[in-house]
Amino acid sequence: MFSKKPRQVWTAGVVTLFPRSFPGTLGMSICGKALDRGIWALKTLDIRDFAVDRHKTVDSSPYGGGPGMVLRPDVLDRTLEAISDVPGRRICLSPRGRRFDQAFAKELAHEPGVVLVCGRYEGIDQRVIEAREMEEVSLGDFVLTGGEIAAQALLDATVRLLPGVIGSEQGLDEESFEDGLLEYPQYTHPKIWKGRSVPEVLLSGNHKKIAEWKKQQSELVTRNYRPDLWEAYEGVKVQL
Amino acid sequence: MFSKKPRQVWTAGVVTLFPRSFPGTLGMSICGKALDRGIWALKTLDIRDFAVDRHKTVDSSPYGGGPGMVLRPDVLDRTLEAISDVPGRRICLSPRGRRFDQAFAKELAHEPGVVLVCGRYEGIDQRVIEAREMEEVSLGDFVLTGGEIAAQALLDATVRLLPGVIGSEQGLDEESFEDGLLEYPQYTHPKIWKGRSVPEVLLSGNHKKIAEWKKQQSELVTRNYRPDLWEAYEGVKVQL
Repeated sequence: MFSKKPRQVWTAGVVTLFPRSFPGTLGMSICGKALDRGIWALKTLDIRDFAVDRHKTVDSSPYGGGPGMVLRPDVLDRTLEAISDVPGRRICLSPRGRRFDQAFAKELAHEPGVVLVCGRYEGIDQRVIEAREMEEVSLGDFVLTGGEIAAQALLDATVRLLPGVIGSEQGLDEESFEDGLLEYPQYTHPKIWKGRSVPEVLLSGNHKKIAEWKKQQSELVTRNYRPDLWEAYEGVKVQL
Repeated sequence: MFSKKPRQVWTAGVVTLFPRSFPGTLGMSICGKALDRGIWALKTLDIRDFAVDRHKTVDSSPYGGGPGMVLRPDVLDRTLEAISDVPGRRICLSPRGRRFDQAFAKELAHEPGVVLVCGRYEGIDQRVIEAREMEEVSLGDFVLTGGEIAAQALLDATVRLLPGVIGSEQGLDEESFEDGLLEYPQYTHPKIWKGRSVPEVLLSGNHKKIAEWKKQQSELVTRNYRPDLWEAYEGVKVQL
C-alpha cells in the first residue's frame, strides 16, 4: 500500500514594513475565498519586529551618499531567518528586477510557495540580496513607493492559477497571453444599448463564424495595442 | 491685482465591485500621508450600487458564448455618470490595454485627476468602453483576478510624483528609469556584515569616483537584467 503524502498548502511569505497591507485585496473575491478554503496560506512578517535597538531602526543612510534610506542587511536577514519554514524562492520586488509575466506566475504556481520581500525607501542593502540569493523581480517600468502593491499583484496572478481556485468553466484557456494574443472584445446584455448593437455574428449561433471573428478581433487588438506581441506571434506562425 | 485660483486637488475616481479594497495600501505610508494632507483625493464608487434590478445584477453571460461573465454596459455607464465630476481620463485596467510605465505616470500626475475602472469577470462590454472613450491600460503581461490591485499600482506610481508628496531630499531624480538605466546597488550600515564589506570606493569620500562607480554599476545591472532597456539606452548614446 502507498501512504499518501498530505498535500502541502501553497504558502506565501511576505516580509514588509506595512503588514496591515496584507491580505488587503487578496483577502477578497476569488483569492480571498481560496485563502478561506485553505488552498493557499499567507504568512506576513513585520521587518520592524526584527530590529535590535530600542528605536526599532530598520534603515540607514546609503554609503557613498545619495538620497533616501536603505534597509539594513542585518535586520532583513533576521526577518528572512524567521520565515525560513516557508518553501520556495526568495523574491525581492524592485524596479531593478527581471520583469514579472504570466509565464513567471505559472512557474511560481507549480512551486510549493514563495517569500516576497517588499522594499521601501531607496532599496535594500545588496549584501543581503546576495547572501540570501534573492531574485529581484519587477512588475513593470514604473516606480512604486514600496513593494507591497507589487507583491499583491504577483500573488493575485499566481494564486488564481493554483488548482481549484478558478473553476474550469471560468476559462483560464481563453484569456489574454494564452495563445500569444490579447483577448477579443466582449459583449453582453442588453442586445441594443443606447443605439449600439452587439456585432451580428455573435447572435448568429454559427460557432465556426464566431470562432473566426474572435480570432480576427484578437489579432486586430494585438496588432494595434501591442506591436511587440504581434511580432512575436507572427514569428511563431512563420516558424510552424 | 491677480485673483488666485484655488488649487484643484488631484482626484482619483475608482469604480469597482470591491470598494473595500480602497484606499488599502494607498492609505498607508507616503501616499496615505499625502491623502491625509489633502494633496490628493480619492472617490470610490461601488458598481453594484448602480444595478437596477432587485438582484443587483451587474454582469451577464457573453454573447457568442464563452466562459465567465461580462460587466453590463448600462450598469457601468450609470456608475461613470455618477463620477463625472472627477476630471481627467477614463481608464479601464485590463491585460488587453496599452502598457503602463513611468512616462504614463508622469502624464497623469500633470493632469487634474483620473477615473479608473476596475474590471472583474471576463471583461467589460465593449460598447461602454467606446461610448465613454475609455483607454484600456495594462500593468504588464499577466492576468489578475480584477483591476483593483492594478489600479492601486497605477495610483501609487502617479501620486508619489505629485508636488509635495516626496521631498526633494528623497530624490526622484536618481531612481530607476530616470536616465534610461536601472538603479545601482545600495549599501548601508553595518560596514562589515557577515564578512561582507561595503565596496571600498563608497567609503573613499571621492565623489567623482563614487559617481563613476554608480554609473558603471547601473549600466551593468541594466545590461544583465534588461537587454531591451540597454539597447534603447545605447541607441540614445549613439544618437547624441
